[in-house]
Amino acid sequence: MTAAAAQKSSWLRPSLDWLLVFVPVAFALRYVEAWQNQTALFIVSALAIIPIAGWMGHATEQLSHRMGQGIGGLLNASFGNAAELIIALIALQAGHIEVVKASITGSIIGNLLLVLGASIFAGGLRFKRQAFNKTAVRASCTALILAASALVIPTIFHFAAARTPTGWTPLAEQRLSLAIAFVLIATYGAMLLFSLVTHKQLFVGGEADIGTKHDSDDDHAEQWSVGKAVTVLLVATFAVAWISEFLVGAVEAARHSLGVTEVFVGVVIVAIVGNAAEHSTAITMAMKNKMDLSVGIAVGSSLQIALFVAPVLVFASYLFPHQLNLEFTVPEVVAVVLAAFVTDQIAGDGESNWLEGVQLLALYVIIGLLFYFLPAAH
Amino acid sequence: MTAAAAQKSSWLRPSLDWLLVFVPVAFALRYVEAWQNQTALFIVSALAIIPIAGWMGHATEQLSHRMGQGIGGLLNASFGNAAELIIALIALQAGHIEVVKASITGSIIGNLLLVLGASIFAGGLRFKRQAFNKTAVRASCTALILAASALVIPTIFHFAAARTPTGWTPLAEQRLSLAIAFVLIATYGAMLLFSLVTHKQLFVGGEADIGTKHDSDDDHAEQWSVGKAVTVLLVATFAVAWISEFLVGAVEAARHSLGVTEVFVGVVIVAIVGNAAEHSTAITMAMKNKMDLSVGIAVGSSLQIALFVAPVLVFASYLFPHQLNLEFTVPEVVAVVLAAFVTDQIAGDGESNWLEGVQLLALYVIIGLLFYFLPAAH
Amino acid sequence: MTAAAAQKSSWLRPSLDWLLVFVPVAFALRYVEAWQNQTALFIVSALAIIPIAGWMGHATEQLSHRMGQGIGGLLNASFGNAAELIIALIALQAGHIEVVKASITGSIIGNLLLVLGASIFAGGLRFKRQAFNKTAVRASCTALILAASALVIPTIFHFAAARTPTGWTPLAEQRLSLAIAFVLIATYGAMLLFSLVTHKQLFVGGEADIGTKHDSDDDHAEQWSVGKAVTVLLVATFAVAWISEFLVGAVEAARHSLGVTEVFVGVVIVAIVGNAAEHSTAITMAMKNKMDLSVGIAVGSSLQIALFVAPVLVFASYLFPHQLNLEFTVPEVVAVVLAAFVTDQIAGDGESNWLEGVQLLALYVIIGLLFYFLPAAH
Repeated sequence: MTAAAAQKSSWLRPSLDWLLVFVPVAFALRYVEAWQNQTALFIVSALAIIPIAGWMGHATEQLSHRMGQGIGGLLNASFGNAAELIIALIALQAGHIEVVKASITGSIIGNLLLVLGASIFAGGLRFKRQAFNKTAVRASCTALILAASALVIPTIFHFAAARTPTGWTPLAEQRLSLAIAFVLIATYGAMLLFSLVTHKQLFVGGEADIGTKHDSDDDHAEQWSVGKAVTVLLVATFAVAWISEFLVGAVEAARHSLGVTEVFVGVVIVAIVGNAAEHSTAITMAMKNKMDLSVGIAVGSSLQIALFVAPVLVFASYLFPHQLNLEFTVPEVVAVVLAAFVTDQIAGDGESNWLEGVQLLALYVIIGLLFYFLPAAH
Repeated sequence: MTAAAAQKSSWLRPSLDWLLVFVPVAFALRYVEAWQNQTALFIVSALAIIPIAGWMGHATEQLSHRMGQGIGGLLNASFGNAAELIIALIALQAGHIEVVKASITGSIIGNLLLVLGASIFAGGLRFKRQAFNKTAVRASCTALILAASALVIPTIFHFAAARTPTGWTPLAEQRLSLAIAFVLIATYGAMLLFSLVTHKQLFVGGEADIGTKHDSDDDHAEQWSVGKAVTVLLVATFAVAWISEFLVGAVEAARHSLGVTEVFVGVVIVAIVGNAAEHSTAITMAMKNKMDLSVGIAVGSSLQIALFVAPVLVFASYLFPHQLNLEFTVPEVVAVVLAAFVTDQIAGDGESNWLEGVQLLALYVIIGLLFYFLPAAH
Repeated sequence: MTAAAAQKSSWLRPSLDWLLVFVPVAFALRYVEAWQNQTALFIVSALAIIPIAGWMGHATEQLSHRMGQGIGGLLNASFGNAAELIIALIALQAGHIEVVKASITGSIIGNLLLVLGASIFAGGLRFKRQAFNKTAVRASCTALILAASALVIPTIFHFAAARTPTGWTPLAEQRLSLAIAFVLIATYGAMLLFSLVTHKQLFVGGEADIGTKHDSDDDHAEQWSVGKAVTVLLVATFAVAWISEFLVGAVEAARHSLGVTEVFVGVVIVAIVGNAAEHSTAITMAMKNKMDLSVGIAVGSSLQIALFVAPVLVFASYLFPHQLNLEFTVPEVVAVVLAAFVTDQIAGDGESNWLEGVQLLALYVIIGLLFYFLPAAH
């Protein structure tokens, strides 16, 4: 979702913008009656969102540069995962609660294992040993472990309460989730205060803020006017929202024809689509040996999902008929905890090599297999 | 429970001694017939125990100074959490098994998340970055993780045995708990041997022993005679025991009028009361940038509860009608494991900042919410 | 299983070779009709396998020296735990699925907690503080945590799938296990490529390869001819297989007369027998302050079991009537995760002392108690 500027000069950028060709195809599949095919619509919409999400990230980036570090960082931290947020809001409105929850855990796992794993692997193929700012990464990993711990609690509550005589009630669970959402977003605020105000010098060297990313490394990148940035942001947001409607509307039919569960769609497909832009940027940065940026994007994006997007979705769900709580399935909770723990183990020493990338990817594959074989919950 | 000496000159001390005013009020509420009110008695007794527990700690401290490092350390390590032990013994005698178990896990969690979190936060507001002895803290954290692992085992046993044809039997569980209690207290002995004899030089610099604390930093503190120390210790112990009777006697009525469960009383209320003195000392030390002492008190006190107080309570329960085992509820076990793990993550690098304090406090709030919303087990 | 050469000159070596006296006793108990006693046969066979497994390790070691580092390392990595593999294959053929699974988890736990714990303790009694190569150990610990995570997945699958309407099916579980086995053995291959080819210099200083061990420290050890090494390897393999038949044939009768469960036999007894040679070598090395070798043997052997032996057994089970999957019982999974986590905590800082050995041993005892008290699953 970020730093399209940095991609400008990279060999990866064209591949993402070429995906814009799927935007008209998506509209055709949706509105030309003869061509209607739900599965094709689902796939094409997914592909069409990827480059637009990249432009949203680029516009956000440009706006934050204009706003100065404080407000800019806040903007970046809030809209960095805007495409995921929009897709999730539209799925929420359509009542696909399980897909939304699964896309939250899937984004966390995907950023930590797939994005970070592929970056460390790709970087490791070129450089024998890559180093990054240990202090900044440790702070992020601690926040990650806190977030994973918080996401464990409602599930534990559900199982423990179900064993009591008075039992588990949806109301108690909803209130617990709401309270936890407030605590999570408050710690996110504290983290921004820490990285943008009180301890910003910790993050300057590595240029990798917790939960925010500045791609200032690409010094020759064009500077947009505020008007252009706002216009691109609005148009892209509108387009992502529109195509997300196609994606969400086709999800049921696509699931059946592809033979996968709602959880698999959320954990694997939506998570990959929503994070494709991060993915290409993080890999490009790793291959340029800018590991601070690469690790910052992957871990920061996970944190943003867990500490900002998830609570905002809980709050926003009160505008819709179905409320979202933070009670995830046991496999989701275990996957998030394992991903957070293994990331901490691998990134916590401030250096990486190709084997560590393979290890992260191996865990991603194993978790993907779990969700692939798992039957639907209902 | 410790190091009242260090508080002598601090602004926090008066606030604790002023609580002594609740001692006569507690007696009045208990013995003056017209004034009997169980909920008020519960609250007032809780407040009255705090300063007396502080004096017990102070007297223990003075005695250990007189005894030399070896015996003194042992004394400190054994009686450092004497007030918790007394409250628990009286609750055990009254058959409040759930409250006792919950106060064990609550003390561990409270010391790690609330006491350590508040100390790191308070210290972090004054100092940008605070450092402490990494080696001593790592050793403590390893012991903590071992203790948390041991407390997981009986719960796993219960669930696994319940699924077998022969099933789970209370006798097997009791024997397993007893055997684990022996292993835990043996590792506590090994830890004392390590920190007081074979590797004491590791702990000299930081003055923060594993599981014991020396507040020798307050060099201008008065020195008590052995007679005075023993007298204060005996009187304070007697007073804590007496008022604990009020507290435990009123717990049922108070629970109902306050609308909370036994587990919540143990995990949150008893744990806060029993550790109030540690709390004020640890915060004071952190604000003086004596982080070794501050971290040593919080982590050491948790260890003492897990490796010494819990086994002693299991052994002592054989004197009472109801035996205590070490099988905790799943939420308690998860809370202890998360607390140990996050503490290790935050303290393991030997430095702290205000954000880490906020993160520990956030986890404490989230765990507190879990126990607040959890219905009673029976 | 390894490095018999190093034991040659040690005081521990004679004790292992003297166990060869049990070889003829085992044959007598099996084939002399008047002497048949299943429990005695079980115990004697177990003791007889220990020294032969040592000779297998020694022969493998000699062969790998002759082959050069690349092929030699591969050979060592593949046959390092050949005795466990043979015992497991014979138990698999006899349909003792539970024993085989338990011996996998038991070998992992035993190597990490018992072998490493005893080594660190024994070394720590002689040396106040022992240091080892932090980078190599961290890489192994990461692989260990990945392996533990992978072994969690099928159990989570089982529980989660059992709660769905369509439910859990043995076929889905078998396919998931098979897929995970492929991922595990692929990461093992990546690890060998890393330690033997791309990053071999990381491991040269410490002489402790991941998953392989070179006891080249004993420079005065005799050099065997390839013919001798191959002959010894073949004869020892044949003998281990033969006596394993006795062991496996007597397991049922022995279990009943000793009053222990299949899981206990696998986790504790088979695991100790299969790893006795590692045990004596690792302790000897620790007492010579060669901690890199000692830690390398214990952690490397665990890794080899998890990433090589376990997948090979899954593949091999397709030759037998009963297929092996990777779904372990909850106590086994918890034990492996705790063992991996505590090992990482203790070894991850690159230094050790006697207390850390005691802590590892304490966890081994606690886990042993769990399996001792646990009733049979069926």
